[in-house]
Amino acid sequence: MQGLMQHVPLTLQMILERAATLYPAKTVTTKTGDGFHRETYGELAERVARVASALKEMGVKPGDRVATAAWNSYRHLELYLAVPCMGAVLHTLNIRLHPDQLGYIVNHADDQIVFVDTSIAPLWEKVQPGTRVRETVWMDDTGTPTPGGLDYEDLVADGSPDFAWPGLDEDQAAAMCYSSGTTGDPKGVLYSHRSSLLHSLASLFAGQVGLHERDVCLPIVPQFHVNAWGTPYGAMLAGASLAMTGRFMDPVSVSQLVQEAGVTISAAVPTVWFGVLQAIKAGKVDPSTLATLKRIPCGGAAVPEPLMRGFDELGITIVHAWGMTETSPIATIASVRSSVEEEAELETRLTQGIVLPTLKLRIVNDAGDVQPWDGVSYGELQISGPWIADAYYEPSEPGNRGGLDRFEDDEAGNRWLKTGDVAVINPEGYMKIVDRTKDLVKSGGEWISTVDLENLLISHPAIAEAAVIAVKHPKWDERPLACVVRSDESVTKEDLLDFLASKVAKWQVPDDIVFIEEVPKTSVGKFDKKVLRKRFADYELPTL
Amino acid sequence: MQGLMQHVPLTLQMILERAATLYPAKTVTTKTGDGFHRETYGELAERVARVASALKEMGVKPGDRVATAAWNSYRHLELYLAVPCMGAVLHTLNIRLHPDQLGYIVNHADDQIVFVDTSIAPLWEKVQPGTRVRETVWMDDTGTPTPGGLDYEDLVADGSPDFAWPGLDEDQAAAMCYSSGTTGDPKGVLYSHRSSLLHSLASLFAGQVGLHERDVCLPIVPQFHVNAWGTPYGAMLAGASLAMTGRFMDPVSVSQLVQEAGVTISAAVPTVWFGVLQAIKAGKVDPSTLATLKRIPCGGAAVPEPLMRGFDELGITIVHAWGMTETSPIATIASVRSSVEEEAELETRLTQGIVLPTLKLRIVNDAGDVQPWDGVSYGELQISGPWIADAYYEPSEPGNRGGLDRFEDDEAGNRWLKTGDVAVINPEGYMKIVDRTKDLVKSGGEWISTVDLENLLISHPAIAEAAVIAVKHPKWDERPLACVVRSDESVTKEDLLDFLASKVAKWQVPDDIVFIEEVPKTSVGKFDKKVLRKRFADYELPTL
Repeated sequence: MQGLMQHVPLTLQMILERAATLYPAKTVTTKTGDGFHRETYGELAERVARVASALKEMGVKPGDRVATAAWNSYRHLELYLAVPCMGAVLHTLNIRLHPDQLGYIVNHADDQIVFVDTSIAPLWEKVQPGTRVRETVWMDDTGTPTPGGLDYEDLVADGSPDFAWPGLDEDQAAAMCYSSGTTGDPKGVLYSHRSSLLHSLASLFAGQVGLHERDVCLPIVPQFHVNAWGTPYGAMLAGASLAMTGRFMDPVSVSQLVQEAGVTISAAVPTVWFGVLQAIKAGKVDPSTLATLKRIPCGGAAVPEPLMRGFDELGITIVHAWGMTETSPIATIASVRSSVEEEAELETRLTQGIVLPTLKLRIVNDAGDVQPWDGVSYGELQISGPWIADAYYEPSEPGNRGGLDRFEDDEAGNRWLKTGDVAVINPEGYMKIVDRTKDLVKSGGEWISTVDLENLLISHPAIAEAAVIAVKHPKWDERPLACVVRSDESVTKEDLLDFLASKVAKWQVPDDIVFIEEVPKTSVGKFDKKVLRKRFADYELPTL
Repeated sequence: MQGLMQHVPLTLQMILERAATLYPAKTVTTKTGDGFHRETYGELAERVARVASALKEMGVKPGDRVATAAWNSYRHLELYLAVPCMGAVLHTLNIRLHPDQLGYIVNHADDQIVFVDTSIAPLWEKVQPGTRVRETVWMDDTGTPTPGGLDYEDLVADGSPDFAWPGLDEDQAAAMCYSSGTTGDPKGVLYSHRSSLLHSLASLFAGQVGLHERDVCLPIVPQFHVNAWGTPYGAMLAGASLAMTGRFMDPVSVSQLVQEAGVTISAAVPTVWFGVLQAIKAGKVDPSTLATLKRIPCGGAAVPEPLMRGFDELGITIVHAWGMTETSPIATIASVRSSVEEEAELETRLTQGIVLPTLKLRIVNDAGDVQPWDGVSYGELQISGPWIADAYYEPSEPGNRGGLDRFEDDEAGNRWLKTGDVAVINPEGYMKIVDRTKDLVKSGGEWISTVDLENLLISHPAIAEAAVIAVKHPKWDERPLACVVRSDESVTKEDLLDFLASKVAKWQVPDDIVFIEEVPKTSVGKFDKKVLRKRFADYELPTL
């Protein structure tokens, strides 16, 4: 027997219509080269309609991919709504990738039209010749003439404000992001309207991300990183105002934007917030400029304890969250449950947190057995739910469904994404990422978490960065080697080994420590351990 | 092009699984005749599986209607999950209806099995003989032997805790409630799993109902009134504990339950809260017993200003919400937006509020024209969205779809429920119910809101209740007559007319005031103006 309720499709049009109808006076403030650009959601909604009508005029059909190579801005936000709401698919390009890799992605996605900030012209001019892109639309963010091709503002001026939005199927594709996997080619994740809208609703839940009408939200995480973690959609749905960085993500610019827009909540990876703390210490940022800022959803890498403590002292709460491109991305969040004792609060906040409503987690060991939530049993983290990928986009496969070895169906009918992260879940449901599967050190049948060692090292006052890798060992198979960047050159290898020996079991202490200039990073700013593993492949550990 | 995200069905099984997995130590505290019954969600989940397996043993098939005639309790909560999650349809019977009307509803819904609190036996024994119900299961809430038939606890004891929950379609029916329309026969609303789950998610939005893990939620609104406004589902999804009244809804019992369970949020109609205020004034309830209570979502009838002020003084915030059986029910909520000036806050909180995300409102006048949101243009309130009814349940119609004259499709593809309420919406989106369509007084081409006049009268210290109706008038077609229950017999008709004349335009002042003993009420406690209209049908208004 079927229910008799309206089957209204869950689409991003709901966000556009809500912002235009209920929150036309709310604003998006964008940092520019010489100040701030401000537009209301009312103005934005009209420009969104104009851009959508221009796209239609340009021959964009339902399902066509329309890409962006752009920083966070009001224009990028307009495209976030115009492209999916007119039935096309928004493809945000990660402009930190190598031009060859970008070219591969643009062709794999079959991007038709690309919107590019003029500040990104030098990169784009290297990428475009190797692609089938038929039109570049320039967005002037530098005040210089656009380098030929169409200009975004002309599209806006010529478009119709009365564009008739088409009816959409909630399962149709809305947006795509490529996962910059550290192995193999990047893989496309194809979000549906339904998955994006449900993810947006989840960012409104009280006590979690909790976006609400009184917020002013500053996504520093780029719009080309998993849709700025969905915060632009969540903020507009909640009726919160937005602040956008433009191409200015340095601590001073961030603090200026926080002050100008009255930002209450801001999302970025830990590195950004370390930069802000350092700038405060160096006297470059006055902490009073951050007075309105209260909450920082933070993820993308584990939040180290000193960072969380540092912001606690400023009266700003870092809320640790976890997700990946394949999970839209917000999947878990470390809100402190009422049952957590006060002395365990910090430790709890340093986990990746509890899974969001409608999603499910499990831990599976190497033998394929589902592990208990006992806080000690390790295994690969797997996740299931309505905003989790079902397959990767692969146009050469039936139904475009590729990368199927990364997914698994269970007997109860759940589909599980294998995250490649090794994790543990405690009885209260707090999940902690122990490592990437391939980064774990397998020493004499026991696993050693490189993440734990790195977090300990980074908590040492003389250490700026630390990456731990496995190196081959004749007896133990693998043993940990710590690659460390010092902020204080006087600290010695012995100091650090003693420090670690006081914190972890003896067999978990790295066999050696090497001092390096910098930890190599991937395009999204994560540690690129591949490079370190190559460099130290033949490293001979000292005989202990 | 389709998205490639997991199409996980949105079902109430998500709530059961989440409560069992993440919140097994949270509790439901139920007031009993001699104290309190407490069970954890872990215990509840096991009992839910046992009941579901027992239902299957009893031959309950997917789509079969299983009814309840019960007060709020842990058992009723167990049925809220067991019945829909095993694929059947939960039908909560309004035990305040006349036995004849109840019998009509039971037969119309074709209820197979009915779970009845023993305290409701006298009613049920009148109803059952006229129905096709094949089994009554008694739930002993009085400590007396069950009057023959099955006993709930035997079902629990005999059921299997390892019941294998079936896969469900999100569009299948989960529950039904009959709308006690003041005209014609009651009409069935058939909720789907999808609509119920989305409605539950909405009760988690920050700054709105905002249920979260630290809450303890006390639905005083009965589980047989639109599923206690969805609060049991919302609370369990959020990980909040619950408190249930049993059959004890008097102010003293409520305050004992608040204190026992540490209730933070409680939902009920205004009448209940007036009772609590009066009990405090009369010294029967010590306000300190309510110390943990912070928020009161309140609806079902307009919240009068003195009630809101009275609770403000206790440090408890009444949050005005609006909905109806057909809207699951929560559709609008009067959170104060950041743009509302301080002096307009109370007035704003007294509106029915802003529509929830994913829903849409419109106002349509008698000519069928959609009205602007200008705060003055009146018309029928219409509503559209994923937890709004699409049709009424009518088994004799194709697809069970009846009552179609209460719905309308527009050119953009939206379906609108015609609420029968007359409302106005201001430019910020705050909706105010002016009246029921049929209750408005049409005087000389102008409308007079009876609700406005009643709210004014009730704010007079000498007035306990007030209902305003239209009576025929030779010149003006209709004129208002105020039917008033005094709390202070010394107040005169002239006092009240003077009082109103100082508050509203002269033409809006009622032509006369009659003093009555009590305002007649419907089964759900709303004013039954039908009875008053009949009684005063031939009333001759004084010549002014």
